[in-house]
Amino acid sequence: MSVNLSAPVAADLLAINGVRIGITEAGVRKANRKDVTVFLLDEGASVAGVFTQNRFCAAPVQVSREHLLAGKGIRAMVINTGNANAGTGAAGLAHARATCDALAKELGLTAEQILPFSTGVIMEELPVDRIVAALPKAIAAAQSDSWAMAAEGIMTTDTLPKAFSRSVTIGGKTVSVTGISKGAGMIRPNMATMLGFMATDAAIAPELLQPLVKELADGSFNRVTIDGDTSTNDSFVLMATHQAGNAQISTLSSAEGQQLKAALLDVAQKLAQAIVRDGEGATKFITMKVEGGKTEEECRLVAYAIAHSPLVKTAFFASDPNLGRILAAVGYAGIADLDQTRIDLYLDEVHVAVNGGRNPEYKEEDGQRVMKQQEITVRVLLGRGEAAQTVWTCDFSHEYVTINADYRS
Amino acid sequence: MSVNLSAPVAADLLAINGVRIGITEAGVRKANRKDVTVFLLDEGASVAGVFTQNRFCAAPVQVSREHLLAGKGIRAMVINTGNANAGTGAAGLAHARATCDALAKELGLTAEQILPFSTGVIMEELPVDRIVAALPKAIAAAQSDSWAMAAEGIMTTDTLPKAFSRSVTIGGKTVSVTGISKGAGMIRPNMATMLGFMATDAAIAPELLQPLVKELADGSFNRVTIDGDTSTNDSFVLMATHQAGNAQISTLSSAEGQQLKAALLDVAQKLAQAIVRDGEGATKFITMKVEGGKTEEECRLVAYAIAHSPLVKTAFFASDPNLGRILAAVGYAGIADLDQTRIDLYLDEVHVAVNGGRNPEYKEEDGQRVMKQQEITVRVLLGRGEAAQTVWTCDFSHEYVTINADYRS
Repeated sequence: MSVNLSAPVAADLLAINGVRIGITEAGVRKANRKDVTVFLLDEGASVAGVFTQNRFCAAPVQVSREHLLAGKGIRAMVINTGNANAGTGAAGLAHARATCDALAKELGLTAEQILPFSTGVIMEELPVDRIVAALPKAIAAAQSDSWAMAAEGIMTTDTLPKAFSRSVTIGGKTVSVTGISKGAGMIRPNMATMLGFMATDAAIAPELLQPLVKELADGSFNRVTIDGDTSTNDSFVLMATHQAGNAQISTLSSAEGQQLKAALLDVAQKLAQAIVRDGEGATKFITMKVEGGKTEEECRLVAYAIAHSPLVKTAFFASDPNLGRILAAVGYAGIADLDQTRIDLYLDEVHVAVNGGRNPEYKEEDGQRVMKQQEITVRVLLGRGEAAQTVWTCDFSHEYVTINADYRS
Repeated sequence: MSVNLSAPVAADLLAINGVRIGITEAGVRKANRKDVTVFLLDEGASVAGVFTQNRFCAAPVQVSREHLLAGKGIRAMVINTGNANAGTGAAGLAHARATCDALAKELGLTAEQILPFSTGVIMEELPVDRIVAALPKAIAAAQSDSWAMAAEGIMTTDTLPKAFSRSVTIGGKTVSVTGISKGAGMIRPNMATMLGFMATDAAIAPELLQPLVKELADGSFNRVTIDGDTSTNDSFVLMATHQAGNAQISTLSSAEGQQLKAALLDVAQKLAQAIVRDGEGATKFITMKVEGGKTEEECRLVAYAIAHSPLVKTAFFASDPNLGRILAAVGYAGIADLDQTRIDLYLDEVHVAVNGGRNPEYKEEDGQRVMKQQEITVRVLLGRGEAAQTVWTCDFSHEYVTINADYRS
């Protein structure tokens, strides 16, 4: 099941000069499955990343943070599925380091030039030997047009691979952006999603990459939720190879900086929304807009309270306009001085509640009509100020329970 | 479905001198259903209550708060099911007041001596005329031995009525405590449960009742969660009729105060746990103990993060010891300086994780054995200090989705 999402067409995805990707089968958890992916970057590329805020963060997240801080210039990444290498203590850290050591040796680099990523089951030992053994095959397979295959190679409970591209003309030169993401459950990113990788060939001052990746995550992956569970392994990485031939972008506020940012944000939002569209058991894609708040933070609180409520999510699944559940979630979101008599609620263009009560002109059949759609916008007006925020989520179905009751078996 | 819970036997419930209860059918939402209950209290009784912290609190909650503050001496309560009278704006408030006016007139009291309670669907108009019309019949039916029937009369999606009694000897006199509760979904009380009513015949200084009801709620209803949704209508009321003949208890810290409190807390915890045992779709009853925290508040944060995780709850449903999901929830609970290398995890007596990693001596079959039980204790050791907290919850099953996708139909 997925909501208005289809697999990417390989030919639609733009190669990024300076990025090659190799995918192989290592048998991490199951045989005959693409489960190890390597990214190889040309010398001179810049890389920045944001990672999960979960205090139980996985070993590869800890190592990736260290290696980015070391500042030796990242030249390769290795991603395995089937095992998250989280909740694995000191042994897990050693395994993540061993993977980097092995890849560095194959490529003639130092370990600090490698970023490791893992996704899959938590609290089981990483089969590091099988991963290391598969690296030469992955390197040998590396091509610049393998983005579609990479999107498949990083899937876990995803039903579809997720990849998007777009190009933009900056200073007369064509700049390309391509990204992939994965994730379908344990999704309430807090800095980044399960896994997201984006690359551009734009020339851009390397020191701009870290603030840029943070801003992109806040505008995309940090606005989605499926089940409210923040993963131990969330990572979102932005690569720039600087090979497009445009004059180097030196500030994000310049016209060129804004053009590049808009193109990147477009791809990042599509990748983030694709995770929701492919949410475990999702049958609907729901946009939660909260407006009229005093601060963006309180709007986000309200949007997430609605988006996490199992009662709201099951009502969407049933196409049942049981909309009082939305008001209840607004009420417990945590705004201490909220005045319920100022709240309005819309379902698409249907005005459901006015001043905290049912709109006398609201008809059940209008709510019912919108609830039956596959894409629904919920708009809450708080009547407190000018701030607004948007969050994307999905409904909560029998299929979610089935998937998560059976995941390991 | 419910977990180790059976309907109360009417003969086991102790009548409380000074409390009579009448139940009738008003046809609030459906015909042929006991949906209106009145409590009648002798002159001189004391009443205190705690209510939902949801800012979208229902009209009857607003009116009950007002009437308790007025201090005229509460002499009656009226409870309807089938309609929550929440999200109903000014009309809803008028309906709650009209219900009190009508009951006061029947009983020769003033409206401020009445507390109204409603539970059921949100954002639909209260059929106040049908409720008012049913009041004389409820009053005529009032008896002191109707607690079991009252427990039935306040049910909504509950599969079983919930009522408990106990007696305690205080200063040579037998003091009785009886209580009822209802609730099965939209349960994450924040001050009190959906609806809980307890009465004792103990003589106790009336000014002690309010701190006592707060303390009881914190030790019982505020420690349970089913789906994390805080209702608009949560209310928990404690009545004391002072007719047991014991010397008046004038401090809670006295030996007699402690005896009474222990008896009340015992009944309050059984009522709160009964709500979890009857949680929508529940197949397991889970005790979340978090120990070794710096503060009780951070222990509660962790316990609730685990208890609300749909991934943890579906793993319990499946009896799948996918215990990394518990560690992930500990990690995102919100303790900023949590050190994952100090965390231990137990499932009953099975030591699953040690210092943040899998216990080398942990065997999957031991975890599996505990996960298959109907009652499970999860114990998390934070290794930060001496504070501890306990929260009770249930698992998350297909049945929960079915119930909440179909609730209104």
